[in-house]
Amino acid sequence: MNRFFASDNSSGVHPEFIKAMSDVNQGHVIGYGDDIYTESAIAEFKKNFGEDIEVFFTFLGTGANVLGLSALTNPYSAILCAETAHIFEDECGAVERFGGAKLIPIETENGKLTVELIKPHIRGIGMEHHSQVKVISITQVSELGTVYTVDEIKAITKFAHEQDLLVHMDGARISNAAVSLDLPFKAFTKDAGIDMLSFGGTKNGMMYGEAVIFFNTELAKDFKYIRKQGMQLASKMRFIAAQFIALLTNDVWKQNAINANNTAKYLAGKLKAFPEIQLTQEVQSNGIWAIIPNELAKKMQKTQFFYPWDEKKSEYRIMCSWDTTKEEIDQFIKKI
Amino acid sequence: MNRFFASDNSSGVHPEFIKAMSDVNQGHVIGYGDDIYTESAIAEFKKNFGEDIEVFFTFLGTGANVLGLSALTNPYSAILCAETAHIFEDECGAVERFGGAKLIPIETENGKLTVELIKPHIRGIGMEHHSQVKVISITQVSELGTVYTVDEIKAITKFAHEQDLLVHMDGARISNAAVSLDLPFKAFTKDAGIDMLSFGGTKNGMMYGEAVIFFNTELAKDFKYIRKQGMQLASKMRFIAAQFIALLTNDVWKQNAINANNTAKYLAGKLKAFPEIQLTQEVQSNGIWAIIPNELAKKMQKTQFFYPWDEKKSEYRIMCSWDTTKEEIDQFIKKI
Amino acid sequence: MNRFFASDNSSGVHPEFIKAMSDVNQGHVIGYGDDIYTESAIAEFKKNFGEDIEVFFTFLGTGANVLGLSALTNPYSAILCAETAHIFEDECGAVERFGGAKLIPIETENGKLTVELIKPHIRGIGMEHHSQVKVISITQVSELGTVYTVDEIKAITKFAHEQDLLVHMDGARISNAAVSLDLPFKAFTKDAGIDMLSFGGTKNGMMYGEAVIFFNTELAKDFKYIRKQGMQLASKMRFIAAQFIALLTNDVWKQNAINANNTAKYLAGKLKAFPEIQLTQEVQSNGIWAIIPNELAKKMQKTQFFYPWDEKKSEYRIMCSWDTTKEEIDQFIKKI
Amino acid sequence: MNRFFASDNSSGVHPEFIKAMSDVNQGHVIGYGDDIYTESAIAEFKKNFGEDIEVFFTFLGTGANVLGLSALTNPYSAILCAETAHIFEDECGAVERFGGAKLIPIETENGKLTVELIKPHIRGIGMEHHSQVKVISITQVSELGTVYTVDEIKAITKFAHEQDLLVHMDGARISNAAVSLDLPFKAFTKDAGIDMLSFGGTKNGMMYGEAVIFFNTELAKDFKYIRKQGMQLASKMRFIAAQFIALLTNDVWKQNAINANNTAKYLAGKLKAFPEIQLTQEVQSNGIWAIIPNELAKKMQKTQFFYPWDEKKSEYRIMCSWDTTKEEIDQFIKKI
Repeated sequence: MNRFFASDNSSGVHPEFIKAMSDVNQGHVIGYGDDIYTESAIAEFKKNFGEDIEVFFTFLGTGANVLGLSALTNPYSAILCAETAHIFEDECGAVERFGGAKLIPIETENGKLTVELIKPHIRGIGMEHHSQVKVISITQVSELGTVYTVDEIKAITKFAHEQDLLVHMDGARISNAAVSLDLPFKAFTKDAGIDMLSFGGTKNGMMYGEAVIFFNTELAKDFKYIRKQGMQLASKMRFIAAQFIALLTNDVWKQNAINANNTAKYLAGKLKAFPEIQLTQEVQSNGIWAIIPNELAKKMQKTQFFYPWDEKKSEYRIMCSWDTTKEEIDQFIKKI
Repeated sequence: MNRFFASDNSSGVHPEFIKAMSDVNQGHVIGYGDDIYTESAIAEFKKNFGEDIEVFFTFLGTGANVLGLSALTNPYSAILCAETAHIFEDECGAVERFGGAKLIPIETENGKLTVELIKPHIRGIGMEHHSQVKVISITQVSELGTVYTVDEIKAITKFAHEQDLLVHMDGARISNAAVSLDLPFKAFTKDAGIDMLSFGGTKNGMMYGEAVIFFNTELAKDFKYIRKQGMQLASKMRFIAAQFIALLTNDVWKQNAINANNTAKYLAGKLKAFPEIQLTQEVQSNGIWAIIPNELAKKMQKTQFFYPWDEKKSEYRIMCSWDTTKEEIDQFIKKI
Repeated sequence: MNRFFASDNSSGVHPEFIKAMSDVNQGHVIGYGDDIYTESAIAEFKKNFGEDIEVFFTFLGTGANVLGLSALTNPYSAILCAETAHIFEDECGAVERFGGAKLIPIETENGKLTVELIKPHIRGIGMEHHSQVKVISITQVSELGTVYTVDEIKAITKFAHEQDLLVHMDGARISNAAVSLDLPFKAFTKDAGIDMLSFGGTKNGMMYGEAVIFFNTELAKDFKYIRKQGMQLASKMRFIAAQFIALLTNDVWKQNAINANNTAKYLAGKLKAFPEIQLTQEVQSNGIWAIIPNELAKKMQKTQFFYPWDEKKSEYRIMCSWDTTKEEIDQFIKKI
Repeated sequence: MNRFFASDNSSGVHPEFIKAMSDVNQGHVIGYGDDIYTESAIAEFKKNFGEDIEVFFTFLGTGANVLGLSALTNPYSAILCAETAHIFEDECGAVERFGGAKLIPIETENGKLTVELIKPHIRGIGMEHHSQVKVISITQVSELGTVYTVDEIKAITKFAHEQDLLVHMDGARISNAAVSLDLPFKAFTKDAGIDMLSFGGTKNGMMYGEAVIFFNTELAKDFKYIRKQGMQLASKMRFIAAQFIALLTNDVWKQNAINANNTAKYLAGKLKAFPEIQLTQEVQSNGIWAIIPNELAKKMQKTQFFYPWDEKKSEYRIMCSWDTTKEEIDQFIKKI
């Protein structure tokens, strides 16, 4: 069987999710989320995050981020994010086009924002010549594989709320973060002051489907219109719902994330043995960033493909997934 | 088992599509459509429409319509459509928001545009005070269940091309139209002069997934960016591709559409026996439009739910699906 | 001297406005409206409309309408207007592009909306598939030269507020309406329940400059950002302010509107003498709509140019301006 | 008479422009630019830039920049600019909102881009996950008062065209640049490879009005619709045209720019005598950037107001204008 280290979305769908979708494929239900499966899925989210939340499903992570952020902003708003943030780098300007708001990228060392990094960008407040900073967006796990601690998140949300700003968490890999921190989802999101969360399913082994969760429920008031207008309202919603029910019950999310994180750690341990390979970020989740001599990298990529990250520095990204095995890592290492 | 007449998306997923998704759930493939399944699915479309087309998958019909139309227009363009058109009535302003173009609704009797109806709206050409008409959008099957003949389509595309306009077909129910016309897809789309087609999968029994097909391939030049920015680029694309492969091979689309159309015709025949029920549109596909006294309608809705269409006229819409059975129709009729 | 009946913006600038601009052209003031002239102009508006309003100047009427409406709506909102409305017909889709909201045109006989005409369009409320009607936009003087009475306006605003809708008045020719009704501005705007007003200057003889006036001041909260982002924030604001001060003091607006309205009435009286000319709208302000045989129209246009309105009906629009004279009308009539 | 050093738009209107506007205030002309004055103004621009250009007037610089850039880009495009660029910093997100394109800010030392600074940002070309770089926007005079040499511009345009990119020049202070370089406009715009120019009028002493000039005329094809939809089409266009005619004839632009540049240089010379004041940018046009101890700055601001530039560094910006006099500078210095 062919596997890659290219991305955690190169993998297929965990069998539990396939089974869940088959199980709900019975008879007719009203479309667009007015069905018992969607109701149950939302109930599962409430078990994890508390009753006072609003949950909406979208097809994909770009949809969750873009629509969620557009619910928090006006076109004259600005959103601060790391310059490595997926919303800035990898969504082809979707945030700007759909919501109109301005993204202001901030240089970081490890993909994580801090209050110190944010502060200089809080300026021009009340002056109409400047887009008005309204949201700080952080990614957990970050785009460099690092994980914010609860204290780091709380420092940002405390600062944000003092400045009348909102905080968004892009949780495309939130399960990997929960496993890395060994904490329930709620501890580093709602309880840490996050206002709105993009909760990822696809990278945890779902076929498709993400969730936008509003902890500040006032912000969700008109979100159903935004979701429809934003082309993210699934007619056969039950099939997203079924996957989320499966993900949240029986700790499927946890098993999948544990495997991805552990195999990454295992692989990183093996790579450290190669003196010519130099890890550039701490391995805190399911990704490895490393400087690898180009020749060696090419050889490695032939065995199991992965992407360059920064070609100038000869830096590469290696991603493990819910289905990566230690055996294939051993074979991969053997071939080097 | 519970079934409705509410919409052809109240039904679940045809078993062939579930099977197809399971079959491709093997190992890793590169995400975002750079995989062999997507390649095969596109090849299937080319078998149906010819080699000189460009095909892109989206998650849903709104996405196919909105992004496809935005590829054909500028924000200062206008799009002519029937006032009953889904893009005007049922997409919460998505066309206007994403692409900026103006929709100009035209009153029709049966949901179908004609050159005569279109002509008065071709005005202000070259004058900067007016949005410039650029596209005529027709829906096949129309939102009133009627089906354009090939000649009717050709009349519109001929007129359009003479005026330097483009023609879009919203084919959310294109399979029902093909069965109704007893023609291959190509005959009433590409060969009839259509420039861009939204090819529907979900209403034919797929879980999710639609296709944007450019017959005028020049228009597809930048569509990959539009799809990404429009939040319709699936990372695990193979699962949309697999469903389309299944749909297009072994005539699955045809069996599904035949069943939906036939059961609608069967039900319509039964309803005609009720003197107090009056069909308002010819039954040419899988939907029935009928004026039903409110009391009777309420009783009927309790048995198998369906929606009011025009409350002032006491008009209702009854939709049959790929899985509607004659048995349930017989029972439904019996209960009235 | 060459004069037209083409539009009330074919005329130049009333000398009072030129003088006013020269008078304030002294020394430096802070730009963007933070100056004493802007303060004074706003004070003049408050004398006319009461203290509890918010006033913002824009360069042009399109800017006033588009930005004002975007302050009242979300992209998933709908705006109801007459199908002849300038915002629907003559702003090249600016409302849709800038604000994203959907315009829903309503057929009228005389350019004026009524509650009866509006009611059928209030539907799908709370349903995410439909743009949510949020604003009713009326034009005073209407695009067919007719004038809403206070009672007609109150009927609309009462209905609107009961439905939780807002009412915008496009007052590009508000001075002509005030003269026609013989009422102060306030009586048929703020006192009649209007929420937001585009107050026209250019068609009354100003060089450039319009005002957006919020009677519902809560709606103005973020308007300064919208104006800047909407490219309508003049750096040398004092020159718009100076014109508005001149317009509102010494009844310059009134003299200009009286002349325009009176010459239109005078000309209409003369035209009625021609049996082949048939007025199609009541002459209530400074415009005349008339069916004129094409040959005759061509001859008339050669003397003083005016535009066709509806070529199919051989209907023409003849506009009088602040500087139209009875002498030129007499000569015009003589030449026919 | 009160004068400031706050901005070159704190000044009023040069008497020649007032006179020009009065002179054309005769009789009626067709609105929206279809008049002889607009024709003459365009002819004046052609005398300066050659026949093969397209010229459009807008109300203000934000309009010129935003609409011009939107003609050059798609919503999935990216525009590279200095992080100090007016389009990034001072237009409240107008570029992103109107056109949808992404602005990518680049750090510079002196407000000027170079090929070396630009190169690392040309990446992800052809990959749909990334906004596609399409335009490099430079500001001449830059937002830090520095002036690009012809060679510096040519280096950028050569690189850009090799990469299939376009180059925009924001020429809000183009007259100051022409005087600083002692070159005709054409030498450092069209002849240097610029594709589209925002030509500034207001900061040179006009009341309002800027021009968008396309040297690559293919790009202008649909600009008239963009201008209308972008709320920048003046109905009484002749008054913008008249000012530009006056500006371009008799070297009014040059006299105004010479005065502004010379007084800035004169003032900079005086300031250099103060050991506690440290100029931070070379004075190449009409602005001075200087670190001034806060106490001293406050004292100076009381005499003639100017703005802080970077409060953390205690850096201030002092702007001279077409009407700044050496006498007031002498008095200003005396009071320190």
